Amino acid sequence: MPPELNRPDIVAELAAVSDRYETALGSNDIPVLDALFYQGPETVRYGVGEMLYGFDEIAAFRRNRPGGSPPRDVLRRHITTIGTDMGTVDLEFRRHGGTRIGRQSQTWIRTPDGWKIIAAHVSLMADVS
Amino acid sequence: MPPELNRPDIVAELAAVSDRYETALGSNDIPVLDALFYQGPETVRYGVGEMLYGFDEIAAFRRNRPGGSPPRDVLRRHITTIGTDMGTVDLEFRRHGGTRIGRQSQTWIRTPDGWKIIAAHVSLMADVS
Repeated sequence: MPPELNRPDIVAELAAVSDRYETALGSNDIPVLDALFYQGPETVRYGVGEMLYGFDEIAAFRRNRPGGSPPRDVLRRHITTIGTDMGTVDLEFRRHGGTRIGRQSQTWIRTPDGWKIIAAHVSLMADVS
Repeated sequence: MPPELNRPDIVAELAAVSDRYETALGSNDIPVLDALFYQGPETVRYGVGEMLYGFDEIAAFRRNRPGGSPPRDVLRRHITTIGTDMGTVDLEFRRHGGTRIGRQSQTWIRTPDGWKIIAAHVSLMADVS
């Protein structure tokens, strides 16, 4: 059976947790950011200037990032849900004062403790591919 | 119920399709690359220098990329499967002659027509985060 994509109620759930993540990122709310990542060695986060494997490396990175993530505006967001328990959130952003477009991709899974990011990738687009 | 992560047989399946993708990328085998992406408007691919929404934009990009993806070596690969029908593949690479580390993230789903990538993100790491 093919997976059911973009069930409206699941898309709404993922939009809400994505909003929550963006708000927490903007205020460098580390407890919420931690709570939205899956707490296991499986979790990966590729950032603009770092590669982090496992929840512990991600949590340590947050604590060593003075002021948190640079302020940014979200320009576009694309959500795809697969079935009822998984989905991807891809968005474009621009950092305040920045010129290059940023991109953030997240893969979310539903757990008994709520939706969690199990893989993330953030980058600034290069001028040449 | 929590999702079962990294069932060995599912990890093996995803490793095999990831290998197949890497081989096709190296030889610019467009039919195989097309076949490994989910053919719908939901699919997203953020590349080093482009942002593509929907399978059609991805397929067009492949056809307008003389010589295909620059040759590269995979330095590390991290696979996480979620249940039996979904998984993520994150890898680090270096382009031949390149100095910056590249990162590629893919979210795969099982369909009646085999495993397909529904979201992908490729970037070169910046010097500063």
